[in-house]
Amino acid sequence: MSGQIEHTLRGSWTPSGAAAAQLSPSAMRWLRQRIGLTDTTTPAMPASLLEVPESALPQDARDELAALVGGEHVLLDDAARLGRAGGMSYSDLMRRRTAADLAVPDAVLLPGEPELVQGALEICARHDIAVVPFGGGTSVVGGVDALRGGKRAVVALDLARLNKLVSLDPVSRVAVLQAGMRAPEAESLLAAHGFTLGHFPQSFERATIGGFAATRSAGQASAGYGRFENMIEGVRVATPRGEWRPGVAPASAAGPDLRQLAVGGEGALGVITEVALRVRPAPARGRYEAFVVDGWQAGADAVRALAQSRALADVTRLSDVEETEVQLALAGGLKSRALNAYARANGIRRPCLLILGWDAASRGELKRRRARTLAALRDFRKVSLGRAVGESWKSHRFSGPRQRDALLDRGVCVETLETAAHWTGLGELRSAVRTALVHELGSARHRPIVMCHISHAYETGASLYFTVLAPRDEDALEQWARAKRAAGEAIAGRGTISHHHAVGVDHRPWLEAEIGTVGTDVLAAAKRAVDPTGILNPGKLVEAH
Amino acid sequence: MSGQIEHTLRGSWTPSGAAAAQLSPSAMRWLRQRIGLTDTTTPAMPASLLEVPESALPQDARDELAALVGGEHVLLDDAARLGRAGGMSYSDLMRRRTAADLAVPDAVLLPGEPELVQGALEICARHDIAVVPFGGGTSVVGGVDALRGGKRAVVALDLARLNKLVSLDPVSRVAVLQAGMRAPEAESLLAAHGFTLGHFPQSFERATIGGFAATRSAGQASAGYGRFENMIEGVRVATPRGEWRPGVAPASAAGPDLRQLAVGGEGALGVITEVALRVRPAPARGRYEAFVVDGWQAGADAVRALAQSRALADVTRLSDVEETEVQLALAGGLKSRALNAYARANGIRRPCLLILGWDAASRGELKRRRARTLAALRDFRKVSLGRAVGESWKSHRFSGPRQRDALLDRGVCVETLETAAHWTGLGELRSAVRTALVHELGSARHRPIVMCHISHAYETGASLYFTVLAPRDEDALEQWARAKRAAGEAIAGRGTISHHHAVGVDHRPWLEAEIGTVGTDVLAAAKRAVDPTGILNPGKLVEAH
Repeated sequence: MSGQIEHTLRGSWTPSGAAAAQLSPSAMRWLRQRIGLTDTTTPAMPASLLEVPESALPQDARDELAALVGGEHVLLDDAARLGRAGGMSYSDLMRRRTAADLAVPDAVLLPGEPELVQGALEICARHDIAVVPFGGGTSVVGGVDALRGGKRAVVALDLARLNKLVSLDPVSRVAVLQAGMRAPEAESLLAAHGFTLGHFPQSFERATIGGFAATRSAGQASAGYGRFENMIEGVRVATPRGEWRPGVAPASAAGPDLRQLAVGGEGALGVITEVALRVRPAPARGRYEAFVVDGWQAGADAVRALAQSRALADVTRLSDVEETEVQLALAGGLKSRALNAYARANGIRRPCLLILGWDAASRGELKRRRARTLAALRDFRKVSLGRAVGESWKSHRFSGPRQRDALLDRGVCVETLETAAHWTGLGELRSAVRTALVHELGSARHRPIVMCHISHAYETGASLYFTVLAPRDEDALEQWARAKRAAGEAIAGRGTISHHHAVGVDHRPWLEAEIGTVGTDVLAAAKRAVDPTGILNPGKLVEAH
Repeated sequence: MSGQIEHTLRGSWTPSGAAAAQLSPSAMRWLRQRIGLTDTTTPAMPASLLEVPESALPQDARDELAALVGGEHVLLDDAARLGRAGGMSYSDLMRRRTAADLAVPDAVLLPGEPELVQGALEICARHDIAVVPFGGGTSVVGGVDALRGGKRAVVALDLARLNKLVSLDPVSRVAVLQAGMRAPEAESLLAAHGFTLGHFPQSFERATIGGFAATRSAGQASAGYGRFENMIEGVRVATPRGEWRPGVAPASAAGPDLRQLAVGGEGALGVITEVALRVRPAPARGRYEAFVVDGWQAGADAVRALAQSRALADVTRLSDVEETEVQLALAGGLKSRALNAYARANGIRRPCLLILGWDAASRGELKRRRARTLAALRDFRKVSLGRAVGESWKSHRFSGPRQRDALLDRGVCVETLETAAHWTGLGELRSAVRTALVHELGSARHRPIVMCHISHAYETGASLYFTVLAPRDEDALEQWARAKRAAGEAIAGRGTISHHHAVGVDHRPWLEAEIGTVGTDVLAAAKRAVDPTGILNPGKLVEAH
């Protein structure tokens, strides 16, 4: 068991034992030149060099927790605590790489059953100890930062031992999974019964079922399988006020959908311990292809046409000109110059990469669905790059974070942020965010790359996902904080502050502008109802008062 | 304007000016015999015979309200007040037909703008006056009963004057409609721009956009267009604590989906004044067909196959043997005996009617979608009854409530109730509810008909909709209360207490069993946050306690 639980500083994404995705020398050369990179490097710091504060967990609470979950599941050693000191945002990683302002939990709890999570919350509430639920630790918005929130101590409640397939109903196609199960393990357990969730976010390799639910995750195949909240039939939630299990039927008019209040609660409205999920038969066939379309607006119009004619491929992903250029330059394979010439020869002057991927039960279904998608694209000028580029995208679909490790090592400020809006406002939203980021990160020396893609499309709108590459400043944290602030201001009033990363700590400044004072009051009231003393994930999403 | 607002007692559904759907003499003969009907009749009582209590609205509140919304929009006459004395449940109608226990509002407010709704709530909160939002008045769960809840007075806040198309974005395909707009008017305004909502519940002729949202309505074409809450991009809600406007993008991870808390709030969590809705191009083609399949279980399996292969027709509707028999007997057209012989000759012993209807943009799309549906039904024994029966179903799709008026006149206890569950539990749920209703309503003299259909199917489960026909007891209200209690007990623990009728007054006894104490506490906390003194729709959904 404990072999599965990593006790590392996690100053990088790359799972232990796995190779970091190194950039080729030519890619690195290209990038240095493009963004004006100097020679600063910041390799991840060994955990052994860090000073870890003494645990503030009171002895009586510790004894009670140990009696409940087992002494061996209350961890107080430095490695265990450092391993849960925050998530995977650029700021989190830089804090660990530079040993700056690390919020380290006073202990790590590893309860093995939902009932023990419930019991642990009651003990923590009694002793006024903050609880940070911890799944894969992949939050990029500070969602698992071990903040104490004025409590006597803070514990990371690691759900890693809640990793069972509780039940699978093949007739209703509903699987109940425990919250700590990692996505690859969930897929492999379901595959043994012929099923899949079809949920493949970039965090797939590390993230957990409970984390997906707590943050309203959206996978790369959301066009086909839906966002994670669309798969949710029910949840089991532990709270200081008792257990909560909304969801008894696929749909209901028995008042507001409380599942959708529990989902997205980010650990501040309870600790999700089990999730009942709609599953689908694992596809027997799949096909991924790449195209280029001419410019961002034409590409966005094409994706809109697919969404509105309900002909989206399961994966539908449009990169803007900048992202297309960088992907080609950094990934190798296709040569950027060759592609441009090829595209231009076919009448495309501003190539934007469009990845389309279909899953299907049979060759016939695949053919039929692909034909529908391509028919809906009939009126859009596009050039096929064939299956190799599409399949290459698929095989690298989870490698972005590993590549980020290599970039961080070399002194690159690399971070992502995302939003969504209705189609009509999407162009202005993209421009506003781009302008804000370029302005904030650019200088005579710094020539940041701000690239963008649509990865989740709906009939009425789409998400925008930005990736930033810039030379790192001396004060890396402040540099990014400034850029993030500028981007947040650009988003507010134009789109949602997060389409699938959640609120956490980082998006709180803009939440009230989005949901209003009444919305904030309702959330706070819901929190008080389940967590009257505010021990649950302080500083994230919403405060009880 | 005021011509559109009916000031009638509404002891029947049938809109004024429209003809009630009379049963043919042969149908009536069949029914008398089948259920053991006597000669008791209870025609709707003329409003003029009813004693209406004096209005308790205090003069100062009345003056303030009149100053805000205009004196002519504060109605105190008997007809106006009686016209908002409850909804359209069997109990509501019988109360009006027998002048028993009528809860009559002290006044009717007709504000003409969302801001005036907001202002009216603030005045009512200050004067401690309960507010019952009133749309089409079609609630069948007591959702618009004018309960005072211990307040000084109760007003019906009729949204009929909020009937504008606020905006239509044809690119994003989002329409903002005011809450008081009736469904037919919404469809006709959208049709002028080539769009449709595709929302056609049986209450279509009377119900409003705000009512659909407040009660999580599901239309007959929900398989194609989704439930009403699936169409909602945003809502504007007036509350005593200020306005609330959740929803800025098609999807978001900015915390829990607060739209789904506002939607289903049933007027107890605020008064919905505007709804932003996803619209779709109005279909150019449509085709409705009828089949019979062999028995309920085979039919349910067939609908499940359609849902799970995502090949549902936009309308997919399976009647059980009893409902099939009654529909044929009461509707005329196809002869029951002839159908049975025809079905048996084709190997079907227990005919269950299956209505399938497709909407499409073109003949090609219609053909393609129909072929997909029928291919998914390949392995199920079925006999086609052709388009005539299907189109006849479509043209009578809203006439059920009118037919009910004719049955009520003749002394029939006729009521519906509905639930939903996952596929695995659906058979047991149906048996349990049937058994409970037959047991409770049956006697030596009474041979009730309990019939059932699936009208909303999902990958993981479906709704069950029951219709009951029984000879009326002397105490009609008590007779149905007993039956409803028995059905509720049968549903609790097996399915949701309501799939698309909402909670209102009638389902409150079972809500906590479904959502748990924590769920109830969260709802109550949300209510306190928006409605601290509990003036909003007292006695419905949840109390602020």
